[in-house]
Amino acid sequence: MDVLVRPTLLINEANTRANIARMVRKAARHHLKFRPHFKTHQSRQVAQWYREEGVTCCTVSSVQMASYFAVEGWQDITIAFPLNPREADSINQLASYVHLNLLAVNAEALELFLPQLHVAASIWIEVDTGYHRTGVDPDDAASIESMLQTLGQYPKVSFEGFLSHAGHSYKARSTAAIQAIQDEEVQIMTKLKGDYQARYPGVKLSVGDTPSCSVCENFEGIDEIRPGNFVFYDLTQVAIGSCTHKQIALVMACPVVAVYPHRQEVIVHGGAVHFSRDSLVDTQGVTHFGQVVVLQGNEWLLPPQPAFVRSLSQEHGIVTGPPDWVAAVKVGDILGILPVHACLTADAMGEFLTTTNSRIAMM
Amino acid sequence: MDVLVRPTLLINEANTRANIARMVRKAARHHLKFRPHFKTHQSRQVAQWYREEGVTCCTVSSVQMASYFAVEGWQDITIAFPLNPREADSINQLASYVHLNLLAVNAEALELFLPQLHVAASIWIEVDTGYHRTGVDPDDAASIESMLQTLGQYPKVSFEGFLSHAGHSYKARSTAAIQAIQDEEVQIMTKLKGDYQARYPGVKLSVGDTPSCSVCENFEGIDEIRPGNFVFYDLTQVAIGSCTHKQIALVMACPVVAVYPHRQEVIVHGGAVHFSRDSLVDTQGVTHFGQVVVLQGNEWLLPPQPAFVRSLSQEHGIVTGPPDWVAAVKVGDILGILPVHACLTADAMGEFLTTTNSRIAMM
Repeated sequence: MDVLVRPTLLINEANTRANIARMVRKAARHHLKFRPHFKTHQSRQVAQWYREEGVTCCTVSSVQMASYFAVEGWQDITIAFPLNPREADSINQLASYVHLNLLAVNAEALELFLPQLHVAASIWIEVDTGYHRTGVDPDDAASIESMLQTLGQYPKVSFEGFLSHAGHSYKARSTAAIQAIQDEEVQIMTKLKGDYQARYPGVKLSVGDTPSCSVCENFEGIDEIRPGNFVFYDLTQVAIGSCTHKQIALVMACPVVAVYPHRQEVIVHGGAVHFSRDSLVDTQGVTHFGQVVVLQGNEWLLPPQPAFVRSLSQEHGIVTGPPDWVAAVKVGDILGILPVHACLTADAMGEFLTTTNSRIAMM
Repeated sequence: MDVLVRPTLLINEANTRANIARMVRKAARHHLKFRPHFKTHQSRQVAQWYREEGVTCCTVSSVQMASYFAVEGWQDITIAFPLNPREADSINQLASYVHLNLLAVNAEALELFLPQLHVAASIWIEVDTGYHRTGVDPDDAASIESMLQTLGQYPKVSFEGFLSHAGHSYKARSTAAIQAIQDEEVQIMTKLKGDYQARYPGVKLSVGDTPSCSVCENFEGIDEIRPGNFVFYDLTQVAIGSCTHKQIALVMACPVVAVYPHRQEVIVHGGAVHFSRDSLVDTQGVTHFGQVVVLQGNEWLLPPQPAFVRSLSQEHGIVTGPPDWVAAVKVGDILGILPVHACLTADAMGEFLTTTNSRIAMM
């Protein structure tokens, strides 16, 4: 721990590889193509750990992220963000040397974009299975038809199938609740497949969010899954029921700079620019931004009584815990803090340190 | 606007320079040393605009940020974050070629750090004037004495004075509330100066937060101010009463990728990795993450009826607005969105684009 001088995002490589291997096995068991979302780690080295498990395609959340992984040799990439016609130049460049899958959520974007596309690309139609962020209403056959008609006018693009992201599973707090969302998603998606299979014999279905892919076993009729967060998991996934604390693969190491026993507070270097600001509500109904763990060699352990990050400013974190715990913390100590949302914390930090002191770069 | 293809943080140079010039004049009027906090912009070029107004010293929030500005020729830097003894190596290196001011909040950190300090440095004692984040209780003479005794044992360090940050002014929602906080801070700080002036004839007082420095005129006995956010301002500062919308100098430009008139929602590329996740509550009591403005050449204008970012995921922003406004928005449009917290949005974006299309780098 002597190498830790400032807020540092530790990655447990063994946990990360175990999380990857478990999902690879699950996809294989269900005969699913595994196209993991790389927005969680944004790292060529973590991507390499996937490759070592036989993964050959990926999902990203932006054109820039697709470019980063394309340069690293990823040849089959889905940009799981609605097609932005303003990015046509970058998309043309990318699609000229990788198999690019794009996401259509409306005919307007296709009409603006497709005349600018000079190379081959695949298009998925995003379906809203209940998250209500983006995607077409599965009952809105007219909108789907309008997109298919537009696609039909451009021989450079092929229609791959229907894609969904059941992001509302993040509001679930039990396996049963996740299962209900997954069952509904599978039902909606397989009905669509049935409706369009005669006209598009190869039509495929792509789903995937970490809660459903972690706990559900119902993938009947689904062709592909795209979970991302599971590679690290986090406190949100523990709260949902997707994983245990033991499976979390990221922990922030934060130097203690002040201890205020009378306030039961410890001040660490570790703020909103390190954790980002996603929060959770603990079992007492109080908001927090991370939970303290004890760092021990390559492991981190939950202390007997919980301590939480209760407030974040730009660089400061305020941790509260039981009086005897606070009394034992000293200026100069390092606290381990499990992140609420691994994706945003990794994005804010921009690099990882392995528990054997190797730096892992991100895009 | 054709150059805008993805989320882009626009900086209005004229507003920024006007914000700087106004605070420079105010500091001069009150005979205050002006040591602006550079954590808001983290940019050598914006720092240069300060230099052109005669500013020669600055405040930063981390040792790394101090190193960035030291390399750029800033020779007098305060690290306004509690001294972290683990960073002794970097601090020694920095203090060997710039005048470094460090922040002590307890004797423990000084006892761990000072034996490791090989070069001259100045120390400020942070005082908690009501924010209750870090700093010594101004009535806790024993703790102050303990720090002064420790400092006295190390001839390499000089005691500069007392420093405070009235961060609780961010909860104010009126000029009167800001004024009350400022009056109390000035009273606490000048009493301390009185108590220690005989023993330390040159003892100085440093205060500074954007609300107080923007609206108050009571700096009697204060030697230095350190506001930072005012350089850009943001929606939080409008809510507090520190500034008007017109003075805000940053706006995020976000491409529209979907429009859902029946939900009164517009989906933009612009998420938590771009805005960070600080929120405000609007006049109807509803949480938001940014407010839509109309981009017009070098200006941005508030539309007649407000539209807000109501939800952020990693890359998506969901904007809601009045039905006739939503009906007029088209896929491919660019929406201007004023940030809730300029410091965190700038940190998340990592660079600015001027309204004349020049890129401004950040650390």
